Amino acid sequence: MAMATLSKDRSAITAALVLIGNELLSGRTQDVNLHHLAQRLSEAGIRLVEARVIPDIEETIIATVNEMRERVSYVFTTGGIGPTHDDITAECVAKAFDVPLIRHPEAARRLIDYFETRGVEVNEARLRMANTPEGAELIANQISVAPGFYIGNVYVMAGVPKVMQVMVEEILPRLEHGTPITSATVVCDLPEGTVAMGLREIQSRYTDLSIGSYPGKANTGYRVSLVVRGADAEQVSAAAAAITSLVRGLGGRVEQS
Amino acid sequence: MAMATLSKDRSAITAALVLIGNELLSGRTQDVNLHHLAQRLSEAGIRLVEARVIPDIEETIIATVNEMRERVSYVFTTGGIGPTHDDITAECVAKAFDVPLIRHPEAARRLIDYFETRGVEVNEARLRMANTPEGAELIANQISVAPGFYIGNVYVMAGVPKVMQVMVEEILPRLEHGTPITSATVVCDLPEGTVAMGLREIQSRYTDLSIGSYPGKANTGYRVSLVVRGADAEQVSAAAAAITSLVRGLGGRVEQS
Repeated sequence: MAMATLSKDRSAITAALVLIGNELLSGRTQDVNLHHLAQRLSEAGIRLVEARVIPDIEETIIATVNEMRERVSYVFTTGGIGPTHDDITAECVAKAFDVPLIRHPEAARRLIDYFETRGVEVNEARLRMANTPEGAELIANQISVAPGFYIGNVYVMAGVPKVMQVMVEEILPRLEHGTPITSATVVCDLPEGTVAMGLREIQSRYTDLSIGSYPGKANTGYRVSLVVRGADAEQVSAAAAAITSLVRGLGGRVEQS
Repeated sequence: MAMATLSKDRSAITAALVLIGNELLSGRTQDVNLHHLAQRLSEAGIRLVEARVIPDIEETIIATVNEMRERVSYVFTTGGIGPTHDDITAECVAKAFDVPLIRHPEAARRLIDYFETRGVEVNEARLRMANTPEGAELIANQISVAPGFYIGNVYVMAGVPKVMQVMVEEILPRLEHGTPITSATVVCDLPEGTVAMGLREIQSRYTDLSIGSYPGKANTGYRVSLVVRGADAEQVSAAAAAITSLVRGLGGRVEQS
């Protein structure tokens, strides 16, 4: 594949996710694709810097794709590549790149093979799933054949979570990976307000790390996760050790994990 | 409350949600707040037009809040209002509005009462949760006292789902509601590619409605939800009836719900 020119700073490999679909904004559907992609990118050292959920509106999709592809190394989209009238992602991405929408021959071949094997009628609606922007490459779909595609640094995937997940696995080996982010979590039984000042002091000493505090549900008392993330595993360990000392010094208990 | 001046066109009451938190972009946390707010706004006839997930970075929060508050009737934010160093939403919203961050006297009173009653130390980290932009009004928190706030058309809520949910209920009665959106769902056992052409024709006859097609998991065969949404309940019923006829005419079965 033609790899986009990226910064030599591997910590600067960034991504954005554009979730396309009225159903996410109407409350019909609970998205799970952001969480999945976020985890997989994190493991690959690619920093997801923003996600946007937008409706099935042509000008919104075009504008969002164009804004994001200028700002990050890789843009991912989910949703809007099925056979129905509300599936408009392929034509919008073609317009964003100012190239014609074509019927991709290999995509059409895969779909026709699949439908004919199963005795499913090959109609125009189904063949729309073979439409891609001119110059796009396919992303295989091991679940239901209809492929995703990529053009430039924009990766267009299905919205159905199982299909999206296999497409993520198709895409990941093709991307430049960054330094994997290491994380360490200290779970304690102190309320956030008790650890806050010490935690701020530790954060101020480890400016290359990101330290987050996340209150969780505890059946009795408090259960707070203090999460350290960063590219330097030794620094992450040192900061986590400092947090463990902080918690114990304040009379708290640290959950062994 | 000072109601923002809104369009007389009640269908044009719009909202955006800004989800703030590194944990959503790192894959640590599965968001559920978008889905909840989307449902409640939909019931109130307020159209959620976009959601953005952004990290705990000051300039990103300020820029996003300022962009969105110009574009929609109501902006909601979740996350970043706790006592720890990574909770920076209040100061960012103050900067977005170019007003000082103050210690809100009523918020401080509520927090001090709460902590003293429970024998919890009142420290500076905990009192940070009483900081709001000058001119902001509080959003009560029936769960853990630390309030949200609103200023202009921006409503700042907690990220913890239970707390966020009680804040949504505090806010909703204060908002101008639009015409509630009616929806009707026809669940059928035909694949999308079979209904697609007829569905497109029905959509072209009902241009005020939004018709979506969502493949679901079926244990055997296909299970597709065809969802009609719109402000005019009679039109929604008529379109749903047309879709039911379409499915039956194509030899499919419609699930009774």
